[in-house]
Amino acid sequence: MRVELIAFTPQPEWVVAAAARLCYSAVGIPEITKSLTEVQVGKFVEKLMKIGHHSPFEHVSFSFGIEGISRVTSHQLVRHRIASYSQQSQRYVSYQELPCIIPSTISQEPELAEIFNKTIDNLKKLYATLLERGVPAEDARYVLPNAMETKIVVTMNARELLHFFTLRCCRRAQWEIRAMADEMLRQVKPIAPHIFAQAGPSCVSDRCQEGEMSCGKPRKELLEGRVK
Amino acid sequence: MRVELIAFTPQPEWVVAAAARLCYSAVGIPEITKSLTEVQVGKFVEKLMKIGHHSPFEHVSFSFGIEGISRVTSHQLVRHRIASYSQQSQRYVSYQELPCIIPSTISQEPELAEIFNKTIDNLKKLYATLLERGVPAEDARYVLPNAMETKIVVTMNARELLHFFTLRCCRRAQWEIRAMADEMLRQVKPIAPHIFAQAGPSCVSDRCQEGEMSCGKPRKELLEGRVK
Amino acid sequence: MRVELIAFTPQPEWVVAAAARLCYSAVGIPEITKSLTEVQVGKFVEKLMKIGHHSPFEHVSFSFGIEGISRVTSHQLVRHRIASYSQQSQRYVSYQELPCIIPSTISQEPELAEIFNKTIDNLKKLYATLLERGVPAEDARYVLPNAMETKIVVTMNARELLHFFTLRCCRRAQWEIRAMADEMLRQVKPIAPHIFAQAGPSCVSDRCQEGEMSCGKPRKELLEGRVK
Amino acid sequence: MRVELIAFTPQPEWVVAAAARLCYSAVGIPEITKSLTEVQVGKFVEKLMKIGHHSPFEHVSFSFGIEGISRVTSHQLVRHRIASYSQQSQRYVSYQELPCIIPSTISQEPELAEIFNKTIDNLKKLYATLLERGVPAEDARYVLPNAMETKIVVTMNARELLHFFTLRCCRRAQWEIRAMADEMLRQVKPIAPHIFAQAGPSCVSDRCQEGEMSCGKPRKELLEGRVK
Repeated sequence: MRVELIAFTPQPEWVVAAAARLCYSAVGIPEITKSLTEVQVGKFVEKLMKIGHHSPFEHVSFSFGIEGISRVTSHQLVRHRIASYSQQSQRYVSYQELPCIIPSTISQEPELAEIFNKTIDNLKKLYATLLERGVPAEDARYVLPNAMETKIVVTMNARELLHFFTLRCCRRAQWEIRAMADEMLRQVKPIAPHIFAQAGPSCVSDRCQEGEMSCGKPRKELLEGRVK
Repeated sequence: MRVELIAFTPQPEWVVAAAARLCYSAVGIPEITKSLTEVQVGKFVEKLMKIGHHSPFEHVSFSFGIEGISRVTSHQLVRHRIASYSQQSQRYVSYQELPCIIPSTISQEPELAEIFNKTIDNLKKLYATLLERGVPAEDARYVLPNAMETKIVVTMNARELLHFFTLRCCRRAQWEIRAMADEMLRQVKPIAPHIFAQAGPSCVSDRCQEGEMSCGKPRKELLEGRVK
Repeated sequence: MRVELIAFTPQPEWVVAAAARLCYSAVGIPEITKSLTEVQVGKFVEKLMKIGHHSPFEHVSFSFGIEGISRVTSHQLVRHRIASYSQQSQRYVSYQELPCIIPSTISQEPELAEIFNKTIDNLKKLYATLLERGVPAEDARYVLPNAMETKIVVTMNARELLHFFTLRCCRRAQWEIRAMADEMLRQVKPIAPHIFAQAGPSCVSDRCQEGEMSCGKPRKELLEGRVK
Repeated sequence: MRVELIAFTPQPEWVVAAAARLCYSAVGIPEITKSLTEVQVGKFVEKLMKIGHHSPFEHVSFSFGIEGISRVTSHQLVRHRIASYSQQSQRYVSYQELPCIIPSTISQEPELAEIFNKTIDNLKKLYATLLERGVPAEDARYVLPNAMETKIVVTMNARELLHFFTLRCCRRAQWEIRAMADEMLRQVKPIAPHIFAQAGPSCVSDRCQEGEMSCGKPRKELLEGRVK
């Protein structure tokens, strides 16, 4: 898996603080766009988080280039509708290689790993045969497995990212999307430390919201395991 | 493929006409909710389409239960973000059978069909073995192919449906999602005949918007082939 | 204020239960669309609320015709972006009367009420003069006050309605939008009693989320005061 | 009116080109994030516009601080739902001055201008009296007119901006929002010249979509008048 932050709104915490100040004070654009000290910005952002005033966080966006994730994971990812996606198309691209993600529950069992790899090899041959015989890539792709790697650019604003981390950094999320979400969080945290200070699963940012499907781990242990 | 309209806003054209009348006249809720004749409603809806005033069409929604489509198609479908989805989960459901969609470019070539079916049979065995050996369904699903059938409930409002038909009833769309979109259009047309009178690919509803990727077919031929 | 539920998805709880069943079980469209007993549907909906699985609630929508609210309130209302609106246009409609909403903090002080009404009367004359002198309605409306009544049709799905009630039935919300939200809740509750059983401000549905801006009332008192 | 571009995704055309290349070619993140020449980026963006592949334009956002617009205009602005807003609150801010926008159809008629200004002065006095007498700002604001100036931060991605310009740079749009949209376009054009090359009303970017409500001006004249 490779996650790369390829673009983001510069000085994101300053933008959030400036937008929020406009709402609550009688000052105008020239005043809010004058430089605030870094400390003032940080305190302002912390306060917004605390009082639950989340809309100013929408003004800043983060774009990630992601590759080496399975289509299992991209299918879950694109279900988040307040976001933008550009995904490598299996319709327009004919693949030479079929790189796949193997879950550890399979790769760590030599016997299972062997039949898994053999089956993928057979798929590869079938896919190549179909293309050779003139089947269009958009039809040949029907044989490609969920495990196959995909590439995607995803953009979310900070408010949606916070929500995304709540759901996908959770131990209840599938391991692969969770690893991806953790890595995304790791990369945005140094850029906007006050925005993402409490980011993570609901048990970290607030309290567990998984109800009877909760993992049940003690909060202390979860706090230790979270993205620093 | 099975497409079933399972719910929709009753009297959709009346709702659209009532909402639009409120915008443009000084009448109030009691007046707009008095019964208009069917003919008046129809004329009003036609006028809204003609002047391009589309927002009142958002007040009415249509929900479809769909099964027997491949995950190739559901992956395209869920990329439409102004809609609601409930999809059968490969994470929580362990399958006994792995029903698959075979593209006709494969099924009509006996030799290709044979190796396709054989490969799917091997996948089935692998999937069953993985489950037997204790691999969780959420990991075993990595071997499932794009061709595998899925089930989904999708809800769109009429404005988004019109947009969806523009893109997905087009000859440039993938054959499977196009068949699905055509069937959806066939089912909503009798219920809201004025709303969907011109619905279909952009060449039917307006003019081709595919630019240099246009299919190039003469408009006359396309009109004949469209959903009645 | 007049709030009228003018349309909604029929049998909303059944639709929600059917969509959700598809996600978690191996059954297909024909099975989920077979009739469930009312009791089964109710239990299923309650369980979805409890485990926080909210997406199936998006499949059902409710449309309200609303009049006799000020533009203060409609301006707050239309900030909810996951919804559809048709509002009476001050651009295209020329008003004879200028009905206004007077806050009780003004109407209950005879002296204030008098100058308020006098000022509105002057505005009325100015508006009429402007129209007479050929100023287009779209420019004459610049003199109209926030207090002026407006009419709007709004459609939200049940998931968004639940979120809307959390924010707008709260004692921290402006009194006018709160009265409107309470009335909307009162009307949908008998139609979908299990969906809206816990609906209301966050203190009722869960726990106060207003942080240091909380009204601080004891929960018991708030529960007594909520929409039945 | 003051419009200030306060933040935007750096190198927006490069981001769009990189995201789009990922979709259509077999290259990965490292390749797409390597530097393309400015000329290559420009050609790529032009091609995307031409074939109507608009989704990559969503990856870049622009944030504007806007002041000196009336609430007539902000009310129209916030109806665009695929955007983010932070608006100065009349609920939390008590105003000393009530700066207003006067339409030229009024300001250019000395007699009308006089009664307009006199009426606003009376409103000012009423507003001040209400505050003095202890009416909360959230209620006193009911007397404020549509003409009153507001301040807002708005963020849109490039795809939505293009759509916004289509509607709001049109001669059919209200003069005030049109002036604001023209100024926004003027500011983003040098930053992303290929993205916004054809931006403007539908008659400029494509062909008139106003139907029978068209202004009817010859296209040549409209092209001359558009934002350079």
